[in-house]
Amino acid sequence: MTPRPVIIDTDPGVDDAMALLMALASPELDVVGLTTIFGNAETTVTTANAIWILEVAGRADIPVTAGASAPLAAPYLGPVPQVHGANGIGGTDPVTPAGSAAAGSAADALFAAVAKRPGEVSILALGPLTNLAIALDRHPSIVDLVAEVVVMGGNALVPGNATPVAEANINNDPEAADAVFGAGWPIVMVGLDVTHQVNLAATAIARITGGETPEAHLLAAAVPTYQRFFEVTNGLDGIYVHDPTAVAYLIAPDAFTTERWPLRVETESFSRGKTWPNLNNTDEAVLPAWNGRPLVQVCTGVDANQVLALVESRLGPPR
Amino acid sequence: MTPRPVIIDTDPGVDDAMALLMALASPELDVVGLTTIFGNAETTVTTANAIWILEVAGRADIPVTAGASAPLAAPYLGPVPQVHGANGIGGTDPVTPAGSAAAGSAADALFAAVAKRPGEVSILALGPLTNLAIALDRHPSIVDLVAEVVVMGGNALVPGNATPVAEANINNDPEAADAVFGAGWPIVMVGLDVTHQVNLAATAIARITGGETPEAHLLAAAVPTYQRFFEVTNGLDGIYVHDPTAVAYLIAPDAFTTERWPLRVETESFSRGKTWPNLNNTDEAVLPAWNGRPLVQVCTGVDANQVLALVESRLGPPR
Repeated sequence: MTPRPVIIDTDPGVDDAMALLMALASPELDVVGLTTIFGNAETTVTTANAIWILEVAGRADIPVTAGASAPLAAPYLGPVPQVHGANGIGGTDPVTPAGSAAAGSAADALFAAVAKRPGEVSILALGPLTNLAIALDRHPSIVDLVAEVVVMGGNALVPGNATPVAEANINNDPEAADAVFGAGWPIVMVGLDVTHQVNLAATAIARITGGETPEAHLLAAAVPTYQRFFEVTNGLDGIYVHDPTAVAYLIAPDAFTTERWPLRVETESFSRGKTWPNLNNTDEAVLPAWNGRPLVQVCTGVDANQVLALVESRLGPPR
Repeated sequence: MTPRPVIIDTDPGVDDAMALLMALASPELDVVGLTTIFGNAETTVTTANAIWILEVAGRADIPVTAGASAPLAAPYLGPVPQVHGANGIGGTDPVTPAGSAAAGSAADALFAAVAKRPGEVSILALGPLTNLAIALDRHPSIVDLVAEVVVMGGNALVPGNATPVAEANINNDPEAADAVFGAGWPIVMVGLDVTHQVNLAATAIARITGGETPEAHLLAAAVPTYQRFFEVTNGLDGIYVHDPTAVAYLIAPDAFTTERWPLRVETESFSRGKTWPNLNNTDEAVLPAWNGRPLVQVCTGVDANQVLALVESRLGPPR
């Protein structure tokens, strides 16, 4: 099996860290680079975290390119220490990686990685979509060069998590998201419709974080803050593994059911950040807002047990 | 059992006609008046239809007061002959009632009916909420005088039907709906979350429209156009009985499960007409848009078989 090359745009982030370690541990994937974005923390913080995670995993060879520090059209909404810790990765003290970011911008790095092997490289987006929108604007040919774009974000048929209407990644840059879902490239939305079905239970977390590897130690430090957030706000036994679920889509798309819908992202008023599919994509039903929009593959169902088994098999000690 | 007095604001409308005949045939309810509104057709048309329906049912004693002819802040979106027929009641020729509307405005008639018996009279709203919003504006004390307001309209956790985001009644006057759901009176939303679960099958329609009463003849003329619409657009065997389901709520609220949420109605952009609950009504989660909004009782589940049996028992011939 030839591993599938993927460049990951990420804002680590506790579940980003899980997703990155999961991708690195998966023989089906070849992580050719990381690009960083604000979201769970500021871009300077998420960049340091991304470099450090690679170092912990012994993969300092993978380049990390820093991305935008603010959304396209609005101020950054700010970090969420109550979810991801003050350092963005479950703790208080900033991490201090040995290495530093590669030169250049995330948008250019995304394009370069994709253009180097036309039709082969996928983009996995785990944060707000600003870098992808900038890449689309600067390098429109990326649309035809990319293998697939997999986005963790959005909520098609379920409520939001950042606001009553919006999922956090999309809410952090709705203008970028509307451009990304309207670009006409092959794109899959792995949103709350499925990630809110994938709850990694406390017992599984304990198995993963109880390991003796550097990766397990990293997660043992990172996950408790995130886990506490879900316990306090949702009464959840465990955590929603949003970003690892998107990695699972790359590895095992058959675990998901999808629909193909035109999709708009609202940017106005208190509906800002809502991903709106047009479910009845007939000529009559297509309203101006959706008119001419390309189809987006939206994950609507998931075999949660299969995804959870995959997450644990890649992150946990052998059972 | 003392029948529960109710004044019905309506835009007949095929399913309005079913709902009105159902209410008139229900010993649990005392229909003290009708007020009319645009929606399924223009207000002049729905007013004639409302008067005619009462005459067919032998209840010309019930006063009908004509309401607003346009939404609060936007033009009327226009009739929907493909759903309700050119005459608004499933056919082509306008109906010609013998009687005429009472003097005065619907908003004042709603207030007068409610004020006459403080705490006793409920309002059942089967169309756009313009008349109710005007009543709130002119007669703020109606909030404390009404027994209950039951609204057929909105979509809390499911897609829209008029647009990808909005239910038809709310979409026809979102500004009015936002006022009505924010007024702080006891209010229940019977929206698509439940009405799209209540499908009156073709076999049941045949039993109802095969009767020998004037009401059955009315429905035999009215329902086929409406039924054809659902067959063509939804591939449905039968019809969603939106308005009769709201009548069923008045008669048998135990057939429904409800949640209490603050609710906003979006008036901007392509999310216009969406009813947005804030599901996590905690201090932290309450965003400015929902801040201070009263709780609305939102129907989220329904015993569809119970409602369907109720509809048929009131509209159909004895079985």
